[in-house]
Amino acid sequence: MTVEIGVEEIEDIALGATVLGTGGGGDPHVGKLVAKQAIEEFGPVELVHPDELSDDAFVVPTAQMGAPTVSVEKLPSGQEAVDSLERIERELDQEVDATMPIECGGINSTFPFAVAARRGLPVVDADGMGRAFPELHHETFNIYGVSGTPAAVSDERGNTCLIETEDNEQLEWLARGVTVRMGGVAYVSDYPMTGTQVKDTAIPGTMTLARNLGRELRVAEDDAMDAIRDVTRSSIYGEAQSLFEGKIVDVQRRTEHGFVFGHVDVDGLGRDEGSSMRIEFQNENLGAQVDGEYVATVPDLITVLDRETGGPIPTESLRYGARVRVLGIKTPEIMRTPAALDVWGPHSFGLETTYKPLEG
Amino acid sequence: MTVEIGVEEIEDIALGATVLGTGGGGDPHVGKLVAKQAIEEFGPVELVHPDELSDDAFVVPTAQMGAPTVSVEKLPSGQEAVDSLERIERELDQEVDATMPIECGGINSTFPFAVAARRGLPVVDADGMGRAFPELHHETFNIYGVSGTPAAVSDERGNTCLIETEDNEQLEWLARGVTVRMGGVAYVSDYPMTGTQVKDTAIPGTMTLARNLGRELRVAEDDAMDAIRDVTRSSIYGEAQSLFEGKIVDVQRRTEHGFVFGHVDVDGLGRDEGSSMRIEFQNENLGAQVDGEYVATVPDLITVLDRETGGPIPTESLRYGARVRVLGIKTPEIMRTPAALDVWGPHSFGLETTYKPLEG
Repeated sequence: MTVEIGVEEIEDIALGATVLGTGGGGDPHVGKLVAKQAIEEFGPVELVHPDELSDDAFVVPTAQMGAPTVSVEKLPSGQEAVDSLERIERELDQEVDATMPIECGGINSTFPFAVAARRGLPVVDADGMGRAFPELHHETFNIYGVSGTPAAVSDERGNTCLIETEDNEQLEWLARGVTVRMGGVAYVSDYPMTGTQVKDTAIPGTMTLARNLGRELRVAEDDAMDAIRDVTRSSIYGEAQSLFEGKIVDVQRRTEHGFVFGHVDVDGLGRDEGSSMRIEFQNENLGAQVDGEYVATVPDLITVLDRETGGPIPTESLRYGARVRVLGIKTPEIMRTPAALDVWGPHSFGLETTYKPLEG
Repeated sequence: MTVEIGVEEIEDIALGATVLGTGGGGDPHVGKLVAKQAIEEFGPVELVHPDELSDDAFVVPTAQMGAPTVSVEKLPSGQEAVDSLERIERELDQEVDATMPIECGGINSTFPFAVAARRGLPVVDADGMGRAFPELHHETFNIYGVSGTPAAVSDERGNTCLIETEDNEQLEWLARGVTVRMGGVAYVSDYPMTGTQVKDTAIPGTMTLARNLGRELRVAEDDAMDAIRDVTRSSIYGEAQSLFEGKIVDVQRRTEHGFVFGHVDVDGLGRDEGSSMRIEFQNENLGAQVDGEYVATVPDLITVLDRETGGPIPTESLRYGARVRVLGIKTPEIMRTPAALDVWGPHSFGLETTYKPLEG
């Protein structure tokens, strides 16, 4: 069944992506504006499930890369990422059949729809993070053996860098350096794949999941927790569970090497009175401890909701005194294998704990 | 007439390149070792004058890029630069007919001979700086309209970045960022050119000039100044002249953005007793003032010689107490046009003076 993504569906995906972004992933508002503008100009975009792809389909994910704070000041048109996509086509002498998000949280959940609208391409209903993560090797594509290169990094002035390496961590390292030189924001097309590789490595259905989360949140009003529970219950993720409720008493942030590191402390209220939670983050929420014991870590989703409005709060908007509810969502098996935990488990982010898989 | 460059000629070129390097350009010793090793293994290299190139010859300059201090610790094989050259061949689907130095001072005067020996290519007897300069857009190729890209930057791990831009300053900016990420040293192939473009834009005969300088310096013993005078007198450069003699009384250096900035102060001796000279540098010597008045600036050559041994002293080896003779060499007309001075005249390096052309 073909699903068409118009401006209303983009609104839903962007809202749902704030839950899946686990506090990071860049401002979905920017991706939403760019995608809506492109769809208004070029028409709606077809969303295709990985199973609908032919095995030899040529799929190239597209994304914005760089500091989220910069992206609001320099609103892209989507053409910048089309440039990087077409650089890959030229390099591999093959026309792209579809694009795909590299992550389903934050700005990059909707950004590929701008590329797709401009180029008349479908978007694959899947991604490579199943949430948001900070770096380009944090991808199931990398974990399950797809080369990230040739990868093209482009900017709004028409400059491009085509990167080739056998090491996807080197791709991240080099592309990040280029992004900084391009002014802090760049547009990347990487992990060129066949349809078979998409089916074997991508996390399926995450665009639909984001859309369903957004649609239900939009009508849920103050009952966000129930809406999120309902949607996640029938997904390949686990049913969302409330990990903690309380009041923010401290927020520490520092920016290093283009990432935002820090933690937020929450004093318990209601059922959690007398306890306290600490959430550590690097762009995205990485781990949550209650009274010093980890109750959830990467790759499982840890999302902070406003306790009054139910809306997800990105790490950059966490403020002293805010009443919050912290929820956890179990991730699908493809994100929790030993190979996956090597790349994005707690140790890979420097958390001093083994992975405590959320159930549910 | 075909000239063959073997290990002895490499010794000469490297020594001559210390004069043309005007204090910078990276340690010629490194380029010399790499070139000699490649020539011993693969045989001597043919040196061809630009006039001998067919108009449609495909010429791609090769160079090491990055911090000179790093290059001694990480001795390259020459294959790293062959990788970048072959990346350009693959991109443009054309076999290279010759390589060429981008500068005739410092490490990059001899480095292309390692590439040439390994690939069985000739080296063009010419370069794009006529001396050493710190950045990739400091090239007559850039000044006279050749695109620097596609340019390939490679490292010893087999990673490559292919850069495309319409702005050669952006090439420098992006390639420098990639070089830093590649560990401080990388290998670049840029300004792919036709034979006609080489004839129109390169500074001809500079490898022969470097070789002649080196050969004469080798036999001159303590009469270096006369040797340099003799060789330059019969070149397209002006006859070398002694600008100042004295004792170093102060050296200031600071490293910023991968460049070494600073100045050296010299108190006059002999005929210059009672005067003092200041030489400002950014990797290379930029300008020389006597008692506050500029007597020479970029692009003319300012080279500091050891007053006893006659050997050129790179900026990194300038030391308090050393007795030195400072010489100036007038550059050829192609390096002094208004277009050239826009790119590498005193103002482009922040010197507060107009260009005072050396005569001679």
